Amino acid sequence: MSRLVMKFGGTSVANVERIRNVARHVKREADAGHEVAVVVSAMSGKTNELVAWCKETGSHFDNPEYDAIVASGELVTAGLLALALKDIGFKARSWQGWQIPILTDDAHGSARIAKIDGARLIDGFGAGEIAIVAGFQGLHAPTNRVTTLGRGGSDTSAVALAAAIHADRCDIYTDVDGVYTTDPRIVPKARRLDRISFEEMLEMASLGAKVLQVRSVEVAMVHKVKLYVRSSFDDPADPKLGTLICDEEDIVEQQVVTGIAFSRDEAQITLRDVADKPGVAAAIFGPLAEASINVDMIIQVVSEDSATTDITFTVSGADFERAQKIIASHREAIGYARINGTEEVVKVSAIGVGMRSHSGVAARAFQALAAKGINIRAITTSEIKFSMLIDEPYTELAVRTLHSLYGLDAKA
Amino acid sequence: MSRLVMKFGGTSVANVERIRNVARHVKREADAGHEVAVVVSAMSGKTNELVAWCKETGSHFDNPEYDAIVASGELVTAGLLALALKDIGFKARSWQGWQIPILTDDAHGSARIAKIDGARLIDGFGAGEIAIVAGFQGLHAPTNRVTTLGRGGSDTSAVALAAAIHADRCDIYTDVDGVYTTDPRIVPKARRLDRISFEEMLEMASLGAKVLQVRSVEVAMVHKVKLYVRSSFDDPADPKLGTLICDEEDIVEQQVVTGIAFSRDEAQITLRDVADKPGVAAAIFGPLAEASINVDMIIQVVSEDSATTDITFTVSGADFERAQKIIASHREAIGYARINGTEEVVKVSAIGVGMRSHSGVAARAFQALAAKGINIRAITTSEIKFSMLIDEPYTELAVRTLHSLYGLDAKA
Repeated sequence: MSRLVMKFGGTSVANVERIRNVARHVKREADAGHEVAVVVSAMSGKTNELVAWCKETGSHFDNPEYDAIVASGELVTAGLLALALKDIGFKARSWQGWQIPILTDDAHGSARIAKIDGARLIDGFGAGEIAIVAGFQGLHAPTNRVTTLGRGGSDTSAVALAAAIHADRCDIYTDVDGVYTTDPRIVPKARRLDRISFEEMLEMASLGAKVLQVRSVEVAMVHKVKLYVRSSFDDPADPKLGTLICDEEDIVEQQVVTGIAFSRDEAQITLRDVADKPGVAAAIFGPLAEASINVDMIIQVVSEDSATTDITFTVSGADFERAQKIIASHREAIGYARINGTEEVVKVSAIGVGMRSHSGVAARAFQALAAKGINIRAITTSEIKFSMLIDEPYTELAVRTLHSLYGLDAKA
Repeated sequence: MSRLVMKFGGTSVANVERIRNVARHVKREADAGHEVAVVVSAMSGKTNELVAWCKETGSHFDNPEYDAIVASGELVTAGLLALALKDIGFKARSWQGWQIPILTDDAHGSARIAKIDGARLIDGFGAGEIAIVAGFQGLHAPTNRVTTLGRGGSDTSAVALAAAIHADRCDIYTDVDGVYTTDPRIVPKARRLDRISFEEMLEMASLGAKVLQVRSVEVAMVHKVKLYVRSSFDDPADPKLGTLICDEEDIVEQQVVTGIAFSRDEAQITLRDVADKPGVAAAIFGPLAEASINVDMIIQVVSEDSATTDITFTVSGADFERAQKIIASHREAIGYARINGTEEVVKVSAIGVGMRSHSGVAARAFQALAAKGINIRAITTSEIKFSMLIDEPYTELAVRTLHSLYGLDAKA
C-alpha cells in the first residue's frame, strides 16, 4: 500500500458529471489499496466569476477580503467530491484550508505555505477515510484569516500536501495527458514525454508551458515529491500513461534537448542614443525593479561613434505600458533620445539537461533559424536552456524548426 | 452612540450594484456614530444553486458536506460588502462563522446556536471597524466542522449576534418595508404596522407570514432583542419607517386583532368510520409523530349511531402523501373504513394580544364568514390567535372579510 495525492484542476471538476468522473478515478486508486488525499480546484469559471465581482466592488482592492471571497470556490468542489465518493460507497470528508490547517504567510493573494499539519488527514487514512482538500488556500494563523496561493495555486497545495504527508507520489490530473516536447497545437508531431527532470520542468513552466504552476515544481524539487501529470479525461478504469517529473538520476535516456517552450507574453522596449556612461543601467533598471517589474533579456548595442548606445530589454506583456511610463518619468536621469516598444515579439526556448555536457547546442539553433530567414533579436542562455527573442509572426515556424532540429518529432 | 446589527437578505445583496446600495445603508448608520455589525445572506439564487449541486451529486445525503458547501455563498457576500465599504472610505472586515466563532450544536442542516463570542467584533468596533458577518452558519467545535442553521437562518444569526454583542437594536432589511396587517398582494388595504409584539410576530411567522424566520423571533423574544423590519430598497440617505418588533409593554395602543395570516401549505386527511374505542388516537397519531410529521388541527365527529367516528386532521402539504401512506400501513391497528384527503384547503388565522382581554373575538369571525357563505372545516384557538381551515377558493374573500371586520383596513 502506498500513499497518493491526486490533484484535479478546474476543467476536471467543471460540473457534477465531471466530479462524478473524478470520483471514479479516486475509486480506482482507493480500490487498489492506496491511502488517498485529493486536492481540488474550483469548478472552472467560478474563480473568474468571483474575481470579477471583487473587481466590480472595490477600487480599494483588499487582499484579505479578495482571498476570503475567491477561496470559496474550492470549498464547493471539495464538498461535492466528498458527496460523490460517499455515493459510490467510500468514506470521505472535505477539508478546508483552516481545518487542516495549511498555514501560510500573510502575503494575501500569493501566500506561501509555511507548514501543513498532516496529522488529522493521516488519522483519517487510518479510519479508511479519503481526504478531499480544498486547494489554492491556507490560513494565516496570527490573524486567523484565509489566504490564497495565487492563480494555479492548487498545484502547489497538492505538492506541499504530498510532502507533508510523505506521499509516494503526487498525481496532477489535467486536461492533457502529460508534458509534451512542445505545444501539440503548434507542432502536431509533438510527443508526450515519459519522464522529465524537475529542473527541465521548471524551465518549461517558467518559459511558457502551462501544464504546471512554476512554484509547484519548485516545491516538488526541493522536497523530492514525484509528480505525475496525467489526464482526467481518460477512462477512469483504464487510464493511459502520463509524464513523470522526477530527479535527473531517475531518467535513463537523457536527451540533449527535452522540449521547446515559447511565450507570447513578451514585450520589447528599446532606448535609443543613451549616453554611454557609468550608472546608466542603474538609472534604467532601478526604477523598474522598485515597481516590481521583472526585466528578462537585456541587449546593449554600442553605436558607431561610441558616445551613445542603444539599450533593448524585455518585460512581460502585462508590464509593457507601465514600464514605458516609468522610463519616461525618469528620462532626465537616464538621458535617452527616443523610446521604441513592441509587443509583437515572442520568446522561443529550448530546454534540456543534456546541454550541460554538450557544446554547440544553441549555435545549431541560430544557424537553423537563420536558414529560414528568422531574425533573432536577443538571446539568453543558462546551464540547461537557451531563449531567443524573435518576431511574433515567425513563432510557429521557429518552434517547428527547433523541434525537428533536436530530434523531438514523433515517428510517423 | 449605540450598537446596531443590520441584516440583509439574499434579494438585498443579489448583485454587486445592490451590495453597493447596502454599503450606503451601512454608511448612514456608521456616519451617525453607531457601532455596526452587518449580517448577510448569500446572493439570491446562489444557495439554491449549491443545494441543487448537492442533490445532483449525492444520493447518500451527508449533512456536514452539505453544510460546508452551502455555507460558502455567505462568505462571498460578506467579503464583497467589506470591499464595497472600504471603497467608500470605511474600515471593514468580513467574518466567517468559524472565525468569530459562532458555536453551534452538530445538527447539520438545522443547527442551533450555542454561543457567540463577540469579543473580537467588539475589539474591532473599538478600532473603528465595521464587522461583516456571514449569516446562516456556525462551527461545531468538537469536530471543527461548518454547520448551517437551516433556510432563512441568517435572521437567526443576526438576532443571536445582536444578543451576544448587546446591540441596542437588530435591523432586518428585506424586500418589503415592514410587517403588514396581512399580505398586501391579497388585501390592498393592508397597513404596515408601526409596532408588533414578539408573541404576535411569532404567531404571524408560524402561521404563514414570510417576513421573518420563526426561530429568529423566538431568539429575539428570549433575549429581548428589539427587531426592526425595514426595506433595503429605500433611498439609503432617507429611509422610510419599518416595523418594530418589541415587548408587549412597549406598545401603547394595542389592537384586539393585529394581523391576519394565512397558510396554503395545508392538507386535510379524514378517516371515516373509525371505531370509537380507547387508544384509537394513539394508533393514528403515534406513527405520524414517529415519522416527524407535525399534526396541526384535529376534529372528531361522532356519527349518529355512536359506534364509529370520523377523525379529521391537518398536516403540512409537504407531509400529505407520506402521512396517507403511514396511515394506510397502520390500517389494521386503527380500524377505519375509508380515508379521504385534500390539499385544497387553507388555514386563515387572526392574531392579537388583545384577545387575552376581549371575549367573543373568534365568534364574530365565524359569523362574518358564515354570512359570506364560507364553510369552516376546523377551528383551533390559543390565547392570542385563532385559526380556521376553509376551502382554498375562499382564501382571499376570507382574509379580506376578517381584515375589515377587525378594523385593520387602511383609511382611504
